[in-house]
Amino acid sequence: MQLLSSQKMFNGWQQRYRHYSQTNQCDMTFSIYIPFRVTQGYKVPTVYCLAGLTCTDENFTIKAGAQQYAAQLGLVLVMPDTSPRGEDVANDAAYDLGQGAGFYVNATEAPWAKHFQMYDYIVQELPDLIEANFDVTQERSLMGHSMGGHGALVIALRNSERYKSVSAFAPIVNPMDIPWGQKALNAYLGDNQAAWAQYDACHCINHASHRLPILIDQGTADEFYPTQLQPEKLVTAAKVAGCPIQFNLRQDYDHSYYFIASFVETHLTFHAEHLGL
Amino acid sequence: MQLLSSQKMFNGWQQRYRHYSQTNQCDMTFSIYIPFRVTQGYKVPTVYCLAGLTCTDENFTIKAGAQQYAAQLGLVLVMPDTSPRGEDVANDAAYDLGQGAGFYVNATEAPWAKHFQMYDYIVQELPDLIEANFDVTQERSLMGHSMGGHGALVIALRNSERYKSVSAFAPIVNPMDIPWGQKALNAYLGDNQAAWAQYDACHCINHASHRLPILIDQGTADEFYPTQLQPEKLVTAAKVAGCPIQFNLRQDYDHSYYFIASFVETHLTFHAEHLGL
Repeated sequence: MQLLSSQKMFNGWQQRYRHYSQTNQCDMTFSIYIPFRVTQGYKVPTVYCLAGLTCTDENFTIKAGAQQYAAQLGLVLVMPDTSPRGEDVANDAAYDLGQGAGFYVNATEAPWAKHFQMYDYIVQELPDLIEANFDVTQERSLMGHSMGGHGALVIALRNSERYKSVSAFAPIVNPMDIPWGQKALNAYLGDNQAAWAQYDACHCINHASHRLPILIDQGTADEFYPTQLQPEKLVTAAKVAGCPIQFNLRQDYDHSYYFIASFVETHLTFHAEHLGL
Repeated sequence: MQLLSSQKMFNGWQQRYRHYSQTNQCDMTFSIYIPFRVTQGYKVPTVYCLAGLTCTDENFTIKAGAQQYAAQLGLVLVMPDTSPRGEDVANDAAYDLGQGAGFYVNATEAPWAKHFQMYDYIVQELPDLIEANFDVTQERSLMGHSMGGHGALVIALRNSERYKSVSAFAPIVNPMDIPWGQKALNAYLGDNQAAWAQYDACHCINHASHRLPILIDQGTADEFYPTQLQPEKLVTAAKVAGCPIQFNLRQDYDHSYYFIASFVETHLTFHAEHLGL
């Protein structure tokens, strides 16, 4: 792991690291916020914050305003990148496929399969790295925005024993049924509907081994609601599956980080409760 | 005034406007945060937030995390641009002169004098525009970062009857005596030391008609401290002039917006007190 930057913030440290990922077969960059509580010698839980289309590890870091609450609550925040990157990594001219648009899947199709293994990277390699190198417990929660909300939900529901809670801002919940998801799943997984279903939160929720608490916020002025974003479908599926879900429809909020900043305290407080803080 | 964007944030509105500036003889862009209290029908005071070198109106807006406190306290925040801009506006290849580096002066030298009248723009034209078009009182405070801290201090000290308080993060306080300031003042004002002194907070503080409360924060890990940033000089000058000043030297913080975000609550609370909230 190579330390790229380290800056004091809210009495803790905002850092950025690069490391070689065996899973993605390329260098990956992540950001991490380490609260003062860790400096005092305590191990604390981790919340992974998955970003949306076009984002890097820096969007949530710079724009969400989350660190102050992580500082108060005593949480480490990890902000991963949204895909493998580099000249040797496959890409597409569109903003919603390739670099910056990994969709948190393990790609099986050329030219993506070699590097685009974001599902395994977020589920296993990155937590292993974090837990080996920082003073964190093995208690984890997940949150995400848009494509990152999709990633957080799918990963938490398929590995519900590994996480205490999951939350999302304006998530894609049923990618099999919307244009963004159909394009990405077809490119990364081919025309294999059974494989697609493994990355669709509305399907995954029926097979979760634990009843993970879920929190979702959606703005009514979001330009992608309800064509690409249909959180009500997950609310219905969660009720059928018996998963506790809280859904907040926020009047006049849009898809931006101004929306996230407005409610990130609610989300981190939710995670802190379920992480036993 | 042309509305460029309007997004809900912390139950208020984050907006961006473009308008023709008579003072700068070109279009100018500013951002404004309007708290819910205004929507309820109350007029509230305004805090002007002046940004540093290379910044636009958006840096403070996106990175400082100030809106949540403006929402709680009931303050309008105005984030101006740092210079005139456009193809017809003079510029320089360096980051510290020309567009993005107006230094909040009224330029007298070619090629800058035609458009670079940022002092009058911030002192008079912009407040006139804000107070004519938004539900704000005529109570104002000023804050700024780096070059914007210089602007906030000079403008507040030279117009101390127009402002209730002034604060700065890592401000330039004695531009006549440091490389950034000497370069800019020489370009904009020529080799006229008397004119330079009008834009040097350490000089202006001796002539302030009101004893304006001043708050300054400086990080010890700031790469520009103490070569370009020498806040202790203003502390000394303020004591001589009898101006109340609070100076916080913040251990290990740098020059970035992570530093600002960490202490912006303190600054806005300081202004709210002096604005009678």
